[in-house]
Amino acid sequence: MCAIFGIAGADEAAKLAYLGLHALQHRGQEGAGIATTQDAKPYVFKRQGHVGEIFSPDVMRDLPGRSAIGHTRYSTAGGNTALNLQPLVMKSALGWIAVAHNGNLVNAGEVVHRLETEGAIFQSTTDTEVFIHLMARSPHRELVPALTYALSQVQGAYSLLVLNSRQLIAARDPMGFRPLVLGDLRGSPVFASETCAFDLIGARFIREIEPGEMLVVDLDEVSRWESLRPFPKSPHKKCVFEHVYFARPDSNVFGSNVHGVRKALGRRLAKEQPVPGGEVVIPVPDSGVPAAIGFAEESGIPFDMGIIRSHYIGRTFIEPKQSIRDFGVKLKLSPIRSCVEGSRIVVVDDSLVRGTTSKKLIKHFRDAGAREVHLRISAPPTTSPCFYGIDTPTRAELPASSQSIEEIRRYIGADSLGYLSLSGLIEVASASSASGFCHACFSGEYPTAVSNK
Amino acid sequence: MCAIFGIAGADEAAKLAYLGLHALQHRGQEGAGIATTQDAKPYVFKRQGHVGEIFSPDVMRDLPGRSAIGHTRYSTAGGNTALNLQPLVMKSALGWIAVAHNGNLVNAGEVVHRLETEGAIFQSTTDTEVFIHLMARSPHRELVPALTYALSQVQGAYSLLVLNSRQLIAARDPMGFRPLVLGDLRGSPVFASETCAFDLIGARFIREIEPGEMLVVDLDEVSRWESLRPFPKSPHKKCVFEHVYFARPDSNVFGSNVHGVRKALGRRLAKEQPVPGGEVVIPVPDSGVPAAIGFAEESGIPFDMGIIRSHYIGRTFIEPKQSIRDFGVKLKLSPIRSCVEGSRIVVVDDSLVRGTTSKKLIKHFRDAGAREVHLRISAPPTTSPCFYGIDTPTRAELPASSQSIEEIRRYIGADSLGYLSLSGLIEVASASSASGFCHACFSGEYPTAVSNK
Amino acid sequence: MCAIFGIAGADEAAKLAYLGLHALQHRGQEGAGIATTQDAKPYVFKRQGHVGEIFSPDVMRDLPGRSAIGHTRYSTAGGNTALNLQPLVMKSALGWIAVAHNGNLVNAGEVVHRLETEGAIFQSTTDTEVFIHLMARSPHRELVPALTYALSQVQGAYSLLVLNSRQLIAARDPMGFRPLVLGDLRGSPVFASETCAFDLIGARFIREIEPGEMLVVDLDEVSRWESLRPFPKSPHKKCVFEHVYFARPDSNVFGSNVHGVRKALGRRLAKEQPVPGGEVVIPVPDSGVPAAIGFAEESGIPFDMGIIRSHYIGRTFIEPKQSIRDFGVKLKLSPIRSCVEGSRIVVVDDSLVRGTTSKKLIKHFRDAGAREVHLRISAPPTTSPCFYGIDTPTRAELPASSQSIEEIRRYIGADSLGYLSLSGLIEVASASSASGFCHACFSGEYPTAVSNK
Amino acid sequence: MCAIFGIAGADEAAKLAYLGLHALQHRGQEGAGIATTQDAKPYVFKRQGHVGEIFSPDVMRDLPGRSAIGHTRYSTAGGNTALNLQPLVMKSALGWIAVAHNGNLVNAGEVVHRLETEGAIFQSTTDTEVFIHLMARSPHRELVPALTYALSQVQGAYSLLVLNSRQLIAARDPMGFRPLVLGDLRGSPVFASETCAFDLIGARFIREIEPGEMLVVDLDEVSRWESLRPFPKSPHKKCVFEHVYFARPDSNVFGSNVHGVRKALGRRLAKEQPVPGGEVVIPVPDSGVPAAIGFAEESGIPFDMGIIRSHYIGRTFIEPKQSIRDFGVKLKLSPIRSCVEGSRIVVVDDSLVRGTTSKKLIKHFRDAGAREVHLRISAPPTTSPCFYGIDTPTRAELPASSQSIEEIRRYIGADSLGYLSLSGLIEVASASSASGFCHACFSGEYPTAVSNK
Repeated sequence: MCAIFGIAGADEAAKLAYLGLHALQHRGQEGAGIATTQDAKPYVFKRQGHVGEIFSPDVMRDLPGRSAIGHTRYSTAGGNTALNLQPLVMKSALGWIAVAHNGNLVNAGEVVHRLETEGAIFQSTTDTEVFIHLMARSPHRELVPALTYALSQVQGAYSLLVLNSRQLIAARDPMGFRPLVLGDLRGSPVFASETCAFDLIGARFIREIEPGEMLVVDLDEVSRWESLRPFPKSPHKKCVFEHVYFARPDSNVFGSNVHGVRKALGRRLAKEQPVPGGEVVIPVPDSGVPAAIGFAEESGIPFDMGIIRSHYIGRTFIEPKQSIRDFGVKLKLSPIRSCVEGSRIVVVDDSLVRGTTSKKLIKHFRDAGAREVHLRISAPPTTSPCFYGIDTPTRAELPASSQSIEEIRRYIGADSLGYLSLSGLIEVASASSASGFCHACFSGEYPTAVSNK
Repeated sequence: MCAIFGIAGADEAAKLAYLGLHALQHRGQEGAGIATTQDAKPYVFKRQGHVGEIFSPDVMRDLPGRSAIGHTRYSTAGGNTALNLQPLVMKSALGWIAVAHNGNLVNAGEVVHRLETEGAIFQSTTDTEVFIHLMARSPHRELVPALTYALSQVQGAYSLLVLNSRQLIAARDPMGFRPLVLGDLRGSPVFASETCAFDLIGARFIREIEPGEMLVVDLDEVSRWESLRPFPKSPHKKCVFEHVYFARPDSNVFGSNVHGVRKALGRRLAKEQPVPGGEVVIPVPDSGVPAAIGFAEESGIPFDMGIIRSHYIGRTFIEPKQSIRDFGVKLKLSPIRSCVEGSRIVVVDDSLVRGTTSKKLIKHFRDAGAREVHLRISAPPTTSPCFYGIDTPTRAELPASSQSIEEIRRYIGADSLGYLSLSGLIEVASASSASGFCHACFSGEYPTAVSNK
Repeated sequence: MCAIFGIAGADEAAKLAYLGLHALQHRGQEGAGIATTQDAKPYVFKRQGHVGEIFSPDVMRDLPGRSAIGHTRYSTAGGNTALNLQPLVMKSALGWIAVAHNGNLVNAGEVVHRLETEGAIFQSTTDTEVFIHLMARSPHRELVPALTYALSQVQGAYSLLVLNSRQLIAARDPMGFRPLVLGDLRGSPVFASETCAFDLIGARFIREIEPGEMLVVDLDEVSRWESLRPFPKSPHKKCVFEHVYFARPDSNVFGSNVHGVRKALGRRLAKEQPVPGGEVVIPVPDSGVPAAIGFAEESGIPFDMGIIRSHYIGRTFIEPKQSIRDFGVKLKLSPIRSCVEGSRIVVVDDSLVRGTTSKKLIKHFRDAGAREVHLRISAPPTTSPCFYGIDTPTRAELPASSQSIEEIRRYIGADSLGYLSLSGLIEVASASSASGFCHACFSGEYPTAVSNK
Repeated sequence: MCAIFGIAGADEAAKLAYLGLHALQHRGQEGAGIATTQDAKPYVFKRQGHVGEIFSPDVMRDLPGRSAIGHTRYSTAGGNTALNLQPLVMKSALGWIAVAHNGNLVNAGEVVHRLETEGAIFQSTTDTEVFIHLMARSPHRELVPALTYALSQVQGAYSLLVLNSRQLIAARDPMGFRPLVLGDLRGSPVFASETCAFDLIGARFIREIEPGEMLVVDLDEVSRWESLRPFPKSPHKKCVFEHVYFARPDSNVFGSNVHGVRKALGRRLAKEQPVPGGEVVIPVPDSGVPAAIGFAEESGIPFDMGIIRSHYIGRTFIEPKQSIRDFGVKLKLSPIRSCVEGSRIVVVDDSLVRGTTSKKLIKHFRDAGAREVHLRISAPPTTSPCFYGIDTPTRAELPASSQSIEEIRRYIGADSLGYLSLSGLIEVASASSASGFCHACFSGEYPTAVSNK
């Protein structure tokens, strides 16, 4: 997963991009980059690491100009990381172009193969470069038609920001898989994956970039932007997992507040999967907290913060040879004995992917004296990999793709295990936002053809 | 504030010390160090930074031996940090000695002055070096009498670990200001500032080191340790602020679980300072969470996690010139509009020291639409500086030392402000642990003479 | 300027490339890189800095395989250095290709413009990428015809090494501007810019790669390489400045030992520009030493090492505000008073480009007591910029392009100034090697059309 | 070996100290430090590494004040390097004191033992700390009598700079083993181990600090310094090895120019140990160059720079497994085949300590085609370790302590081997400077009692 941020026509554009990425880094902590433009020239700085470590005052001085786009990247296996950091800045007959992208193309493999046959050279393994190659090969010499040409050839999920010396363009695929919002900061248009970036810099939220929309900002007159819709309308397929897990609770995503949706999921979960006789509701921090509060409210069972999450997980990891049982989980999550001892506890988490962490955590709770451990998940079983930008395991690694809930319950060692139903999830998510959702990870219903990429 | 950890006669002693310090680093994140011994020689590594960054596998290889002591240090203003990191390892006629210390001596200035007059040279500005100089000048040539000689000349708060090639000694001042606990890991004695360090490495808690106790472990026969009480008994003065703020919620400190005490303080606060018509109870994360849960339970007002705390505060800090209002707080704490909009909210925090953060936070809540903001503090007003090891501001910087509660309320802009009473705090803290507390920061009643140090 | 090195079919190919680059780094100290191949995959590591700092044992472990090419790069102004480091490794329909290049194309601008019009995207500003794009667009799908196709479209100076998973190719432009030699290390073919790289690793010198030659090594059978000459013969235009300044004295370049040529230039200089009454011959170290020895031998004036050159010029450079006169030169070159005091001295240098250093040095000699300072240059006046790979100033910055020798003498403050004649230079350089030289920097006679690039 | 530098009452004192250390770093490249004072407070920065890397502009900003002392340290085996860097800055009843020291005490072991018995604590293993402890224990509370008291208790070699908030003192032991000179920079007194530091910053040389002298500068009135001679006169024992090898050629040491002395040693060597039929004289660079020039002049055999010395020896050192013969020497020194092929060569070096490098170099010369290799050393055989500050091997590692010259010749593989005689060395060294020399490393005649330290 990734986040993108853009701003046009503002003093200290790079600093604002830095702050926007800071607010968005829950979407990607492997590396980040910012590209700016001044006097028709591009400037870019990208590095691996956390946003706060990458952008020093020295780096900021080397990112002049009044318009900027930025990107923060999630850790994915393999690949030359440094080359895959974004924004990509490349020079072609269109001049230089900087691109930042969140999403995943389902036909990237075919397109790359075709372009290489025609003499193209690829530097990275990112989809982002695919957009740039397609633009460079467009018969057009202006950014808007070249981008339209490029987008007409790709399928899948993309929320894009494109910057050159004259324009900043925000684009979102016709199904609208990934979020992208438009704001205003004292007359400058601002773009971000989530609204929490606007809150930090004091920008005002205007609206979502619509699925299928291309919003074009002229850098010489940023207050007058133009909205284009070059492609036919498509049913919306917004990623429901953004609400379940990915987005930050204080963001509004697809029109709803994430924290509010999660609490509502917890309430629904309490109705669908009650725990009679439960004595305390304990969230798996941090992402399970809102659903646990909702569950506690609906069920009347008291809420308690019965696990401490350590925020000091360092990069070097040293484990004794005489291995400490469940060491990794223990370093991060510490149950509080006084909260659980002798009790029938309800543990609430937002999702259960592989199940290994849950298994260890349940063991910890029992070691700390819990009498019964009932696990409740505020989402349906994860049965299918995502091809639209979320790094899920393959189907073979997803226990729910092949095992029954009872088998999983036995594996993780819970006294009971309850998931939210798919219909429950969709009803809650749809309550405040009219449009459709992609729930392929829970249902296997992919809204596009998917390759074996 | 600082934390200490020690272990005697264990495989991979340095790794266990590393893990113990990892669990304890909420008590000090400026730097850390570990000293070990093998074949009568000392090994030490200290550096500024977080525990997880300091101790790489390479560093571990350079810390051989079966006994270790470690220290993690809180950031304090001024002074040459690198020189002040602990454990201090120094060579004298006693051979080498390694010392790690948590606390603060109230007569250090006088002792240093006297020793310098006699020709002593001080390298650091830590009290720790005072212990070593006094030991080096003792007429005795054995560690136990030399340490007894040294301790007889100092006053104030200390929880100490002393290592040489033959013994590991744990000592605690007669009033018992700072915590220090004894555990057992498969036959090896373990020492730590808090029990959470034992939980991480799987050690069994045995008991507190008693105020005034010196517990001596012979490194050749670690299972048979000796308890000495070289000094007259004194009334206990355990630091109540450990329960209010400092210790980790999953630790047991002075015989009580910290999380449980904090929830009880929240309940008592709800009785003493109710908020009629309050619609939601919101904690200031992370330390205000347990008290807020207690307050919600007692008052019946729903609890919600209405502030998101960012865990990505980087080291470089870049703020735009066109200053963003209350920027620092905003980067760290983000109110969730949907939780507070239109509501009469009760915000619960564990303490109010300078008040500047509270003031900004209340402003944020109002910007996010809160109708009324009622601040409740689960401790009494902080009126007096600490001379026993906690880095509090001077009296002049503590608003509660000179202003009324109403004046503070106006300054921070709350609709109402309520503190827990001192008697309430003492009653709750004493409920589960019989012994006496130091509450000088709230009452100004210092249990020792204090210099102007 | 740059250096290249390659080896095929050897154990520890990357280590040998590292050593080769170590010997060649007088040709470029800004950064370096090595690419290797194993199991048909490419591996590459490039970084700014000195060769000895870049390649740690860890880096070496990440460069597996039995064939390698390497590059070390000279500092040039502007441009994103990191992107311009070589070898470039790019993926296209030909598969991946790694290229390392020494030289400069005179028609690169036109070619880049044409390729961009056709949709190509350029990542760097190096000529090296031009070769790769041309190969990727070749109608051929094999490396040799694709490279031939590419080389047929470029003009200028190139000594190239190209590696893919099956072949290593060495190529030199038909005029042979830059050196490139072939050696043998226990059956493995080795390539280097200069023979000094062979001496370090114990390889045997075989012969120069001929101007216009493409030498193709099959990685599966390295001992049987094939020599191709795809282009028509051309008069040779070997860079005479390699002998004057650039190459290492212990190298054989274009068939002659560099140290020997430089001593011969010094002898010729003594005949053409004698200094009657000269009392001591002092070289400007290190590059002026051989010519000074030759001058002293021919003239009978004693040689002395009257300047100490410091080898500790650090990267940070701190100068006091109350500026020390001629500080930069002073930090590097220190005259020895006892060698020059009261004497008529002859200072010998290999070239005089801008003249600023000479001016300062002459001032130092006078401060140290020299009675007369006679400067002798073992090359003709530098009048014209190089377009074939040497970083010379523009014509406007070259005093000899517009000023008389007498004007330059007055500017630098010498008692006399004498240059070697162009015919003298050519005669000496040609004495041991039959082929023709490029001397455009001294004569302005460019052997190719030159753009204003 | 080490170097020291000091300056009192100058603008940008730390920058001038930095430059002085830069000029002196041939005497020590392991680490360096600078201490300054402003408003009665001390400032210090020390680190491992080269001078040019340690002192950044940021570091300079943290070294305010108008007086500074600096130190650069040679690599010595063992010990905690970071702790042993100088200047040492310590606080005692005298206030803070900063000390930088070049030399070695022969009774340090006894003094340390005595002080520890009295309760002293040592942090480092340097002699420098001995001075500070002795001062701290002096009955006096002023710097001059305290330092006199300290110096009266030590024996051996020391050139010292001592700084506190009011004075800068330069002191040299009564025998004058190590050099120390006084200069003037626009009214500010300057101190340095060698005059080359004065040349770089433009200071005027005044005179040597005399053996046994204490020169006291009052920081409030730097132009009026006082010279004290608290100790009885002693015969001078200046280190002759400074002239043979250690000092920089452009320095004047003990009243003579080092380059001039070395050339004279070469001339004397040519008389004592001629090489009939020698065809070329080749120095081992850089330190053998002046003696080789002298040898060539005296003998009439032509001088040539037949070895290239690489200046790019990086810190990481990667050698192939299939070991390259004599790899280390080869990386650093490259014979030029054209200079030696077929010739009877005379190789001149300044000293032969262990002989391993000479052996490898002679092998290289033979591989490069030399017909005969005659090695001439411009000093006597090194038979005895130094106890006065030069890091020589132990007696057992010095071949000349137990083997005949013929045995050494056979070991290194030279056709002949000739050393300068001890009387020749002393006569040349004494020619221009009247005072006596220590030549214990060549003669075994130690001017003090020496312990087995």
